[in-house]
Amino acid sequence: MTVLVFLDPAHPAGRLVDAATPSLLATDQGVTRGDGIFESLLAVDGTPRKIQAHLERLAGSARTMDLVIPAAELWQAAITTAVTAFSASVALASAPAADAPAQCVVKLVVTRGPEGANTPTAWVQVSAISPALAEQRAKGLDVLLLERGYDSGISARAPWLLLGAKTLSYAVNMAALRHAHEQGADDVIFTSGDDLVLEGPTSSVLLAHISDDSGVPVKRLITPHLDTGILPGTTQGALFAAAKEAGWELGYGPVTPADLLDADAVWLISSLRLLAPVNTIDGKEIGTAAIRAELSEELSALLATTL
Amino acid sequence: MTVLVFLDPAHPAGRLVDAATPSLLATDQGVTRGDGIFESLLAVDGTPRKIQAHLERLAGSARTMDLVIPAAELWQAAITTAVTAFSASVALASAPAADAPAQCVVKLVVTRGPEGANTPTAWVQVSAISPALAEQRAKGLDVLLLERGYDSGISARAPWLLLGAKTLSYAVNMAALRHAHEQGADDVIFTSGDDLVLEGPTSSVLLAHISDDSGVPVKRLITPHLDTGILPGTTQGALFAAAKEAGWELGYGPVTPADLLDADAVWLISSLRLLAPVNTIDGKEIGTAAIRAELSEELSALLATTL
Repeated sequence: MTVLVFLDPAHPAGRLVDAATPSLLATDQGVTRGDGIFESLLAVDGTPRKIQAHLERLAGSARTMDLVIPAAELWQAAITTAVTAFSASVALASAPAADAPAQCVVKLVVTRGPEGANTPTAWVQVSAISPALAEQRAKGLDVLLLERGYDSGISARAPWLLLGAKTLSYAVNMAALRHAHEQGADDVIFTSGDDLVLEGPTSSVLLAHISDDSGVPVKRLITPHLDTGILPGTTQGALFAAAKEAGWELGYGPVTPADLLDADAVWLISSLRLLAPVNTIDGKEIGTAAIRAELSEELSALLATTL
Repeated sequence: MTVLVFLDPAHPAGRLVDAATPSLLATDQGVTRGDGIFESLLAVDGTPRKIQAHLERLAGSARTMDLVIPAAELWQAAITTAVTAFSASVALASAPAADAPAQCVVKLVVTRGPEGANTPTAWVQVSAISPALAEQRAKGLDVLLLERGYDSGISARAPWLLLGAKTLSYAVNMAALRHAHEQGADDVIFTSGDDLVLEGPTSSVLLAHISDDSGVPVKRLITPHLDTGILPGTTQGALFAAAKEAGWELGYGPVTPADLLDADAVWLISSLRLLAPVNTIDGKEIGTAAIRAELSEELSALLATTL
């Protein structure tokens, strides 16, 4: 079941439409040019999580794209309309499971609009969360390193490459995932032309190093630096804040593939899948199953406090 | 005026729909992921040009994208339906201009279809040709060199980057054009990380060298090699065949930015704009106005024989 709410000046709370009926013009530049931006976020028990961080990142993507998008209040109102409609339809369709929080996926999309008109098309889509994501958290992932093709320094000098913006032009991200699946892997970590670790096609990369050289264990959580042109991870940011409170040291790249292989644990982290441990990279095991499980449990508990 | 014809198993000649009414689901992966491919071609007096070359390139893009698309006959039938409907509506709207051939733009689009369904969505769009294109041919272009970010050798080793496929994920191409316009330029020529000339965001690059060292003039037409991951230009291909017949020597890159600046003339060439001379690159004039005009006239006449 999918709920769609369009942002529409004539409907301040958003315009609810039937998701099974066409609602986009075929001339919309979102489809003819992949010319638009998006965010995906999690809602738990009817409440969207990290909404401020997602709206800020959407606004950042819009600036990079020279795209004028609806104000935050209009997104908030449309999200409320959409999540409420989704919750109502789920409640109608099934008895509520008393012990499990109801989770759903909230997607915000805005395009440059129909060719010639250049008035943005904006909508909120709410749908059920894929059971595959919980499975990724439980079982972990086999990951391939794949070249993203860009040097880590290009972002600052070539703004037209739109690095760090979450655009609708995701064909390469999807192709990288298909390539991994064909090779029997589950996901991808992109590397730069100068061999630094970047991000996954739909996730940020984290690694942990545990040391106790002086008899006092030091736990360090590391993610690649944003200067490499990667997307700022909203879930990585939330986890870093919680981990710092809990006594973890934080580090920001550069991260090399060798750093990943030497880590005690590596994760792909994103708003929907949350924290999924990486079991192997290019067939090489990361840490041990016991350490991965232990650290994943600790960090997932910290992340849960932020949801 | 825009005519839309969807490819539809229930309608072998295509299903004509109202272009002003929404016809795409908001969950179509063409818009949510820029996950699809396209072609743009010219129709003159109701006849689509180089249709075989465009359908072959569409099929090539589909292979690169692991996308199963409708057969060539179905595209042909839908194109005929769309061009016929467009011509009829133009004839109704205005008296035919006796001296000018009627040109229109035919766009073929196919996406991976709605999320979850994975049945491609395919359509043909026919619309009027922009008067700006004829102006580009007449006045020429001021062009910026912009980094595309990829090394020229990456295409072969990283197929997931989809180089050489004409995907709907065109946000970077559009951003590069916006960047050029902000700088007062008209268009862009992309260069590789290792500083080779690639292509324009919506065109191929050509250059001409004229020499007469031995008293016999030698005219040489050069374009970057496809190994660099650029799109094979259907119009460049047609012009090369005609120029060869007319006694031109043909060359295929590598082409450097210095080669462009040293050329007697440089053009951006594509199916809709045809051959547009480049007046300046990064503010430096290419050849002279007289030579650019003379060579453009000669090659445009050759290209016209292929239309």
